[in-house]
Amino acid sequence: MAGDGSDQRALQYEQTLMYGRYTQELGVYAKEEAARLRESGQRRSRTLDLLEYDKGRCAKCRRSGYPYVLEAPAQDFISVCTVRCQKFLISRVGEDWIFLILLGLVMALVSWVVDFCIAICLQAQKWMYGGLDSNLFLQYLAWVTYPVVLITFSAGFTQILAPQAVGSGIPEMKTILRGVVLKEYLTFKTFVAKVIGLTCALGSGMPLGKEGPFVHIASLCAALLSKFMSVFGGIYENESRNIEMLAAACAVGVGCCFAAPIGGVLFSIEVTSTFFAVRNYWRGFFAATFSAFIFRVLAVWNRDEETITALFKTRFRLDFPFDLQELPAFAVIGIASGFGGALFVYLNRLIVQFIRKQKTINKFLMKKRLLYPALVTLLVSTLTFPPGFGQFMAGKLSQGESLVTLLDNRTWAKQGIAEEFDYIGNAQAWKHPQVNVFVTLVLFIVMKFWMSALATTIPVPCGAFMPVFVIGAAFGRLVGECMAAWFPDGIHSDESIYPIVPGGYAVVGAAALSGAVTHTVSTAVIVFELTGQISHILPVMIAVILANAVAQSLQPSLYDSIIRIKKLPYLPELGWGHHEKYNIRVEDIMVRDVRYITLNCCYRDLHSVLMLGHLKTLALVESAESMILLGSIERAQLQSLLSQQLSRSRRMEYIRERAAAEKKCLSDVSNSDSEDGRQRASQEVRFQISTEESTVSPTRPASQKPLKPALKRPSVMERPTKLPTSPQDHSGIALKSLFCSSPDVEALEDDGDVEDDMTLREIAEWEERQLDEQVDFNNCKIDPAPFQLVERTSLHKTHTIFSLLGLDHAYVTSIGRLIGVVSLKELRKAIEGSVTVKGVKVRPPLASFRDSGTSSSETEATELHKLWDRHRNVSLPEEQPTSESDEKSQ
Amino acid sequence: MAGDGSDQRALQYEQTLMYGRYTQELGVYAKEEAARLRESGQRRSRTLDLLEYDKGRCAKCRRSGYPYVLEAPAQDFISVCTVRCQKFLISRVGEDWIFLILLGLVMALVSWVVDFCIAICLQAQKWMYGGLDSNLFLQYLAWVTYPVVLITFSAGFTQILAPQAVGSGIPEMKTILRGVVLKEYLTFKTFVAKVIGLTCALGSGMPLGKEGPFVHIASLCAALLSKFMSVFGGIYENESRNIEMLAAACAVGVGCCFAAPIGGVLFSIEVTSTFFAVRNYWRGFFAATFSAFIFRVLAVWNRDEETITALFKTRFRLDFPFDLQELPAFAVIGIASGFGGALFVYLNRLIVQFIRKQKTINKFLMKKRLLYPALVTLLVSTLTFPPGFGQFMAGKLSQGESLVTLLDNRTWAKQGIAEEFDYIGNAQAWKHPQVNVFVTLVLFIVMKFWMSALATTIPVPCGAFMPVFVIGAAFGRLVGECMAAWFPDGIHSDESIYPIVPGGYAVVGAAALSGAVTHTVSTAVIVFELTGQISHILPVMIAVILANAVAQSLQPSLYDSIIRIKKLPYLPELGWGHHEKYNIRVEDIMVRDVRYITLNCCYRDLHSVLMLGHLKTLALVESAESMILLGSIERAQLQSLLSQQLSRSRRMEYIRERAAAEKKCLSDVSNSDSEDGRQRASQEVRFQISTEESTVSPTRPASQKPLKPALKRPSVMERPTKLPTSPQDHSGIALKSLFCSSPDVEALEDDGDVEDDMTLREIAEWEERQLDEQVDFNNCKIDPAPFQLVERTSLHKTHTIFSLLGLDHAYVTSIGRLIGVVSLKELRKAIEGSVTVKGVKVRPPLASFRDSGTSSSETEATELHKLWDRHRNVSLPEEQPTSESDEKSQ
Repeated sequence: MAGDGSDQRALQYEQTLMYGRYTQELGVYAKEEAARLRESGQRRSRTLDLLEYDKGRCAKCRRSGYPYVLEAPAQDFISVCTVRCQKFLISRVGEDWIFLILLGLVMALVSWVVDFCIAICLQAQKWMYGGLDSNLFLQYLAWVTYPVVLITFSAGFTQILAPQAVGSGIPEMKTILRGVVLKEYLTFKTFVAKVIGLTCALGSGMPLGKEGPFVHIASLCAALLSKFMSVFGGIYENESRNIEMLAAACAVGVGCCFAAPIGGVLFSIEVTSTFFAVRNYWRGFFAATFSAFIFRVLAVWNRDEETITALFKTRFRLDFPFDLQELPAFAVIGIASGFGGALFVYLNRLIVQFIRKQKTINKFLMKKRLLYPALVTLLVSTLTFPPGFGQFMAGKLSQGESLVTLLDNRTWAKQGIAEEFDYIGNAQAWKHPQVNVFVTLVLFIVMKFWMSALATTIPVPCGAFMPVFVIGAAFGRLVGECMAAWFPDGIHSDESIYPIVPGGYAVVGAAALSGAVTHTVSTAVIVFELTGQISHILPVMIAVILANAVAQSLQPSLYDSIIRIKKLPYLPELGWGHHEKYNIRVEDIMVRDVRYITLNCCYRDLHSVLMLGHLKTLALVESAESMILLGSIERAQLQSLLSQQLSRSRRMEYIRERAAAEKKCLSDVSNSDSEDGRQRASQEVRFQISTEESTVSPTRPASQKPLKPALKRPSVMERPTKLPTSPQDHSGIALKSLFCSSPDVEALEDDGDVEDDMTLREIAEWEERQLDEQVDFNNCKIDPAPFQLVERTSLHKTHTIFSLLGLDHAYVTSIGRLIGVVSLKELRKAIEGSVTVKGVKVRPPLASFRDSGTSSSETEATELHKLWDRHRNVSLPEEQPTSESDEKSQ
Repeated sequence: MAGDGSDQRALQYEQTLMYGRYTQELGVYAKEEAARLRESGQRRSRTLDLLEYDKGRCAKCRRSGYPYVLEAPAQDFISVCTVRCQKFLISRVGEDWIFLILLGLVMALVSWVVDFCIAICLQAQKWMYGGLDSNLFLQYLAWVTYPVVLITFSAGFTQILAPQAVGSGIPEMKTILRGVVLKEYLTFKTFVAKVIGLTCALGSGMPLGKEGPFVHIASLCAALLSKFMSVFGGIYENESRNIEMLAAACAVGVGCCFAAPIGGVLFSIEVTSTFFAVRNYWRGFFAATFSAFIFRVLAVWNRDEETITALFKTRFRLDFPFDLQELPAFAVIGIASGFGGALFVYLNRLIVQFIRKQKTINKFLMKKRLLYPALVTLLVSTLTFPPGFGQFMAGKLSQGESLVTLLDNRTWAKQGIAEEFDYIGNAQAWKHPQVNVFVTLVLFIVMKFWMSALATTIPVPCGAFMPVFVIGAAFGRLVGECMAAWFPDGIHSDESIYPIVPGGYAVVGAAALSGAVTHTVSTAVIVFELTGQISHILPVMIAVILANAVAQSLQPSLYDSIIRIKKLPYLPELGWGHHEKYNIRVEDIMVRDVRYITLNCCYRDLHSVLMLGHLKTLALVESAESMILLGSIERAQLQSLLSQQLSRSRRMEYIRERAAAEKKCLSDVSNSDSEDGRQRASQEVRFQISTEESTVSPTRPASQKPLKPALKRPSVMERPTKLPTSPQDHSGIALKSLFCSSPDVEALEDDGDVEDDMTLREIAEWEERQLDEQVDFNNCKIDPAPFQLVERTSLHKTHTIFSLLGLDHAYVTSIGRLIGVVSLKELRKAIEGSVTVKGVKVRPPLASFRDSGTSSSETEATELHKLWDRHRNVSLPEEQPTSESDEKSQ
């Protein structure tokens, strides 16, 4: 079982960013990525050689293994300091609370600075717009140009520095917390790109939010802080600890964004976790509270506030917040918000898919990558231009201002708007001389709805929570105003008159719509913390639950939708009470045709298994007859075994031995060389183990290793050899068909003493002989306890176990015998495909995806055959080629 | 892996109730239990015969298998109705929300009725006390007698009806949600005992709470409702679903107790779960919200309230709830509460342990079981007698009244108490003509503190949350009053004067102390929901977190403390940043001497393994040489295999066959009999499977089965036989030494056609021959995928996996070979014993508990030898006896 986590982590995913890069660019992207990998791989392999097999290593020795933390001079300085401080620090710094306080502090500062900058940006826009009062055209130009420039800068800056910073970040965090390693998602570059990009994007006044990005920023901060702290102590490299810290960081992100510690913890749990460890609870609360506290204290110190209060404080009456008979209206808000939330998610996905599918648009936008953000911004800001259409939808108010006015505790419809609203100047924006306040609200809701859905597809760091929250508040306000107009003296029939409070409806609407879009209940708590009042708890809870019920039955959550669009690995939730799923067993969904290797197989079997399959790990069974499962081996391990066997150094040794047998004079040289080979093999094993330990540090998954030498090929080619260079390389023809290169390039440099005088046919014959030898698994890292299920395990239980342990696949065994395998793919298909299954007997959807599984492997097989035919012309008949894409599939 | 859950569930625990029954009584208790088991076992074995092997069984057939749900005539009626309604119901009733609504509704009603009855009881006491105004002695008598009678009744009633209802219930729910089956904890009897016992206990006015018991009541309600609903549809028997529903029920319990849906969900998660499935979130929220809503609506309908508001509504000012400079005072409250909370837990445990250890006290109390509650009540009520010492500690106020006055937003110290407090009459109780209000508060805190710790040890259904909450509020109030006296005009230095609000301090104190005692953060949320104000969110959060930090480092939570006292199975949490634990590996803590059976062993091996070991499950390996782990088998399975082999029916068959061989005439009779034997064997297997499906229904764990016949022995003895009755019984001498009886008593009734004419020696010889046969595992239920770990799995990861999956033990394998086993016990010792371990090299604590593990098994071994010697006198030399307590150990 222990190795499954690392399998999962090593799971590769196609890096298709939703907005930042389009799929057609992947070729270019792959090249850049490859160059980067090559470079860092070289550095890594050097540093990793220094590392010992890490059992019992003390914290100090570990430091040298992390090349990313600091540049060399800085590290020197730090290590001088460290020696002095270590005795004290080592005992203190390792404790979680120090880390959490630092994290909270940094994030509060970041949040406050970002807010401050955004406020300045928004003020600047207002000032420009106000200053050009005389000329309407100039005013329009100023109003429109400002956001276009900011958004374009944000998009360009993010694109150049770190395209990973684009979008919300919550979907990626959910994937990372599931145990998948997303490269480059937690680097300093991304941090800078995200913070600056977000500030500019929000400063433009577009309907975008800061919540999602703040979850990402907090996680980045935690990862960087963790790396920094690992200078002082070793525990920061522990994988499970890092996951715990990231979970706490997500809570901090939401907490310091809204000054809502409790809501932050709960919201982050709901959107990022499937199973939550209660022992992490306090971490989230502690860090989020501290962060929210500092965030608000900064406001007090800055004289913005007199004391610590809520961000959008409301002043509803406490004695009689609402009447029991108003509850149906709240329920209506909930249900309507549910539909609205589902529509928002659908609309958002539709826009992305439309742009992706329309090839002409796509091509055009690809060329001018910043055109799309600019166009969208232009459209949105034109429509909100206050003297233009904006006058009918309170266009001159920023997001925060609209929210404050919407949550106001006075009624707009009944009382005279003009007089009352001089008090708070902003609320006047809702009043139009010709048009009713109801029309303004309806227009605001409709326009903001599609604008927000559109704006969140812009490739800048941005969230959708806040825009949705404001739309929800507006909708609630609309219902509230209607109720107030309908019952001017309140519904309550007793002696005292309690007028209806439309602001309360706005609170309910905001919680309900944002809950529906994100599929969370904790928006209720966020709302209480944002407004500082909990008097409407029951209406809010009822509306949020109803909105969730409706939205969850119609659409995935916004974050799950983005996960699917971005093709991140995921496991769908089991639906609401789809009890028919309890009747499906693992035996119904498992793949029975398992690829396996036996303990006494020869290298030829290994070769054919590697060539046919595309699984990340292969099962190791005792023998084909007994099928007793002994463990699982990673593909990369087998590939290295095979490459070892067919390596040039072994061939050179063979040549040497042959020469020795012939000439009886070179025996001592061959000795020293074989030792070298053995040493390298043990290094390889060390590498595997050391990557298992640290996942947050951007180590590439071990299985990717063979790619690196492939990119090194040109250097190999430069060496003058006697062999024809075209298809056959120095080492392993059979192997070449697997990797298109040799993984032991380093070995080439130290066997110049013997000349490789073998002909092509001799090499092939030698390789044939090598392939017939029995595999020696001693140098190979075997996971001795891969996760196992039984045939009769229910789908429900399988789902639970997969999501609990973050599994990628599990073997199905029957009394020790391997009979099948279930991967995330099968499980996903079973859950998504079996919605219509009733009872046990009806299994067409299950059968269908089992078939589709076969058909997909068939198409792969034909592709393989094509390749095989191509390679056949240049290589020997016995060797069969495989496609390079093998590495990436599954 | 799939079978581990059931292993865990089957785990037996010593039924030692903390307060209700003392361990010395276990003999008596065992007899009662045995009688009950025998009875229900007979019913069960009959009904289970009707059950088919449950694969593919439709929901309708299942109904007949559940004898507990309804009595026969009612079931007939229901089944007539069902046929008609089923088409509609089956599609609706299966959905979770119907269940949750019903649960919420029922619990709201229960909560309201209980509250109503408690209020009447308290009023009655006040009325009696007030009516006897003339005579102080009579007044005292009335004041004291009333609670003594109520508590004694409550204790007696609970004792007689269901001793499981005693205490809080949260520790038991935590254990149950971990996957352990606690017998009788979720029955109707317990429900009745808990509700009535709780009402009486709280009606007495003792410092007891209703929160813990309500968690239990809600779970009882869910279990019973689930059983009832299973009449309509099959899904209610699904085990994982039942766990999910129980988790939701815990939330409902807290939610409807305090009308705090959000706090209820969070609190229940924190106190009952280790890992929480986020997909269950909505269930808790939905049910708790509905329940809280109905609970408050009932109050509105009853004209107690005008509309739905908080239970203990506060009216603090919104604009400036607290000054930034007051935060240190809040922090002081938090830290002091942390110490106080730890002290409370310690005091509570001390009292229990003192009573247990003092043998004279214990003996006396055992005889007069109701004396202890009566004495404690007498003491507490004497001290609170209002004209007596009670005048110095607001003795005449009930718990709720004290809380309302403590949360009042006026300041007591500064303003004239007498005039102000005519407004709310209750607050006058705090004022004493001679004594300062500070003294009253201090006395209240000190007296209530030990009173609550003492009162919660009374064997009645009661919780400690509310008393602790009130004490915390009083402590907060005390600090607040001090602050108000110190800064009469508030701390704020600006122009406006904001006086200090001591009520806010009371809120903070209540949350902090209850958080410290229960080790939860969510008391903060409960406090907001109880008071209806969230303005003090930051002080409350800070205080709660500090209180938790202090309390968690000093003592376990109250519930964990009770779990340890009651010896329920538990897994301690990994402490705050004890990073040295990351360095311990499974190989350091595992037991290397694993008991196993091989695939080709004979019955004699089985016998000796069963006799030596005391593990619940045994590993099945391929052979002693290869040690390849094939699966695990439950002890009970092996016992039944062995009993099968040595059964009387098989011996009778042998006699028959021998007779047939001699007389050649009885061949047809022996045929029919052997069929009967086979049928019974398959029943046995069916039984095992059916228990796996339903855990909430009070099926006894399968492994306990052999105990039942042991208790049936007297009836066997009554049958006249030719054999000497003293030590050797009809069946299996070797077996007898294992079970002290034969498990196939039923078989005795249908083989009267052949006479058992074998002598004692013949039987022994026959058994010897039987024991040499090879074991046939075909009829045996093997768990083919027991949970496996690798040697190098870290302690942290092992802990995570154990708590995630609720494991009881895991095998340690190395490439398929079994090399060790880790159980909850080893893990617990590793966590609790290794606090001082630093680094990897230092392992004395680990070594020490490994030794202690050996020594404990040595003492067991000597005990075994004693028994062996005793049995040796009566049985044949080859058979070795085992102790009865084998079943209970591990």
